[in-house]
Amino acid sequence: MPDISHKSAAMPASAIRKLVPYSEAAEVAGVKVYHLNVGAPDIKSPDCVKESTTEFHHLSYTHSAGLQVLRNAMAEKYYKPLGLDVEASDIIITVGGSEAFAMAMQIAADPGDEIIVVEPFYTNYQTYAYLNSIQLKVVHTDIKEDFHVPSIAEFEKQLSPRTRAVLLCNPCNPSGKLYSKEEIMAIGEFCRANGLFLICDEVYREFCYTQEAFFSALQIPGCENNVILVDSVSKRYNLCGARIGCLVSRNKQVMQCALKYAQARLCPPVLGQQVALRALDTPQEYFTEVRQEYKKRRDYTLQALNAIPGVYAPLPNGAFYTVAELPVDDTEAFAKWLLTEFRLDGETLMVTPVASFYKTPGEGKRQVRIAYVLELDQLKRAMTILEKALEEYKHV
Amino acid sequence: MPDISHKSAAMPASAIRKLVPYSEAAEVAGVKVYHLNVGAPDIKSPDCVKESTTEFHHLSYTHSAGLQVLRNAMAEKYYKPLGLDVEASDIIITVGGSEAFAMAMQIAADPGDEIIVVEPFYTNYQTYAYLNSIQLKVVHTDIKEDFHVPSIAEFEKQLSPRTRAVLLCNPCNPSGKLYSKEEIMAIGEFCRANGLFLICDEVYREFCYTQEAFFSALQIPGCENNVILVDSVSKRYNLCGARIGCLVSRNKQVMQCALKYAQARLCPPVLGQQVALRALDTPQEYFTEVRQEYKKRRDYTLQALNAIPGVYAPLPNGAFYTVAELPVDDTEAFAKWLLTEFRLDGETLMVTPVASFYKTPGEGKRQVRIAYVLELDQLKRAMTILEKALEEYKHV
Repeated sequence: MPDISHKSAAMPASAIRKLVPYSEAAEVAGVKVYHLNVGAPDIKSPDCVKESTTEFHHLSYTHSAGLQVLRNAMAEKYYKPLGLDVEASDIIITVGGSEAFAMAMQIAADPGDEIIVVEPFYTNYQTYAYLNSIQLKVVHTDIKEDFHVPSIAEFEKQLSPRTRAVLLCNPCNPSGKLYSKEEIMAIGEFCRANGLFLICDEVYREFCYTQEAFFSALQIPGCENNVILVDSVSKRYNLCGARIGCLVSRNKQVMQCALKYAQARLCPPVLGQQVALRALDTPQEYFTEVRQEYKKRRDYTLQALNAIPGVYAPLPNGAFYTVAELPVDDTEAFAKWLLTEFRLDGETLMVTPVASFYKTPGEGKRQVRIAYVLELDQLKRAMTILEKALEEYKHV
Repeated sequence: MPDISHKSAAMPASAIRKLVPYSEAAEVAGVKVYHLNVGAPDIKSPDCVKESTTEFHHLSYTHSAGLQVLRNAMAEKYYKPLGLDVEASDIIITVGGSEAFAMAMQIAADPGDEIIVVEPFYTNYQTYAYLNSIQLKVVHTDIKEDFHVPSIAEFEKQLSPRTRAVLLCNPCNPSGKLYSKEEIMAIGEFCRANGLFLICDEVYREFCYTQEAFFSALQIPGCENNVILVDSVSKRYNLCGARIGCLVSRNKQVMQCALKYAQARLCPPVLGQQVALRALDTPQEYFTEVRQEYKKRRDYTLQALNAIPGVYAPLPNGAFYTVAELPVDDTEAFAKWLLTEFRLDGETLMVTPVASFYKTPGEGKRQVRIAYVLELDQLKRAMTILEKALEEYKHV
């Protein structure tokens, strides 16, 4: 029997998804599981995406960069009204934000190169770094300091001759941290001064809960050649399964390379592109309502979490996640126990252990990521389950 | 300005798609271009895929391995009736055959490892090998011998301690070569005896034009742990843009690894999966008709090609391509000239130069791949254009 490659055998399984078999088993056994583990919102997609029927003669490949009409509409109907100076030629449609990220990382860095990332960070960054033999160097942020981003001096400490990029997620998955204009400008200037790319994952851009306007990395003056934006259409319009995202950059070399990666996989999914095109006619009120709904959920969830003895969760200003520190030694064991052992009237809870969102060993072992993506009454029930579970877990 | 990674800068552009800007320019200028360059058929998709409307509350992620109902249906409605012993758990739904191939290659081989491939081969094999630092070692087949596959001794010559797999495309893109049961069995036995994976790309399985039943690599006795099948739903049902394929293997380690790759990109596109699910109810008559249509096109195209002075094209028994040797020194220059210079009553032709489908330097420079994916009257016109163009090109 042939051996699997070392690379594949040693590849870490998705920390977010590796508990899935336990939740599947619980659900097969009739247990209701409240899924606070994945950022899979229950929010309705905009009505305008649903009007058309699936009528076609055959489904052709589109251009590898995506439908021209979609790229035009993204620039004109989405980015420009946001104040972002983006042309259709600065956009390549990707298979979700994930593919845009995979491309960006490979365009920025060779095997053996380094990328500086703020931890905690979305675990798949580490997965794609691993697959491409890129080293992640981390700037640590701490839950006790509400994930405050440290000074540029901390970024400078991570600089080496192999550093090729800084990678940010704004708003941040998992912490919900929303970067200020000043923070983004300072990091942009650091990248410009050191000849680094700034890969900025802004897939949660529409989910911010402060009064200030969102400040995109694309708005940093003088960083046109540094910034590679990772964006998602699927996330924005509650179309996660459509798998449509994009890579955006005004650096022509970056776009030429991105097209080569795009050609290797022929084209992005056409049905998703058609839905994305319709989604661009979504009225602003849709986002206003979605933000109101999430803000309500966030406010409830954070208040409820912090009311549980021994739990601490800082208030997130963006995305639909929060990181909470729990009074347990190992949240992975706790999360598994929730799925396999604990039941409250036939119900339980799924949360995501956060240790793998950190690169620094030992960090985050007492933390979970909670996605407040369920309706308020379900979140209430989930918080009750969490409180009872933590109480019982003391005696396990 | 930061530098692009060496890996990305040196990545070859798609040989199939790099002439696209010239065809786009010609079309913008009002020239009608007959596209014999890509395998993008004009054949109608089955009626059963089109019945449902796009109605949903929101589009969730599916399981990373794809919708369970689709995996079940693939096993029960497609593979088992073909005589292939495949369970749902042996299938992972991918973003087209391309993603299945990328996964298979990385599961089989580490950077620095080698994979034996029969040339000419689909160019993106080289692209993914390049991206993963895998070396392709080639067994040559020659147009003058109608791409006859040589004896196993030729495969043995390419064996080294770093060899991890043999990669086949059956029926073959670009040559249309259909492997016999005996050939597949012999290659399977070679893989089994040497502990190699057999990565078999069978995306054109339904497009065969002989009386014998197609023999799949999955049918080789004793090779259950060796075979990794790359398959496509999009291709089969003329849904290319849907981007739904699958990786199939009965090797449990392979499937565990494939799931890790699948998790890193979250899930395959859900709208495409829904269409694929409906496609599995396609009646057999659909394929019978499609094959008849392609056979008619093939027979015409091959007769017409071989009637042009100096042109030779062996009869392909599968897929919808043929490789033709033309009386020109460099088909890349010729293909570009067709798009930029040559017009016959305001029309021209796009073909794919084949040199990059070979790894052996200098091979294939006089060859083009022709996809007979247009209706007969368009093929007739295209062959007329080709004949006139070759005549005129003598004097350029």
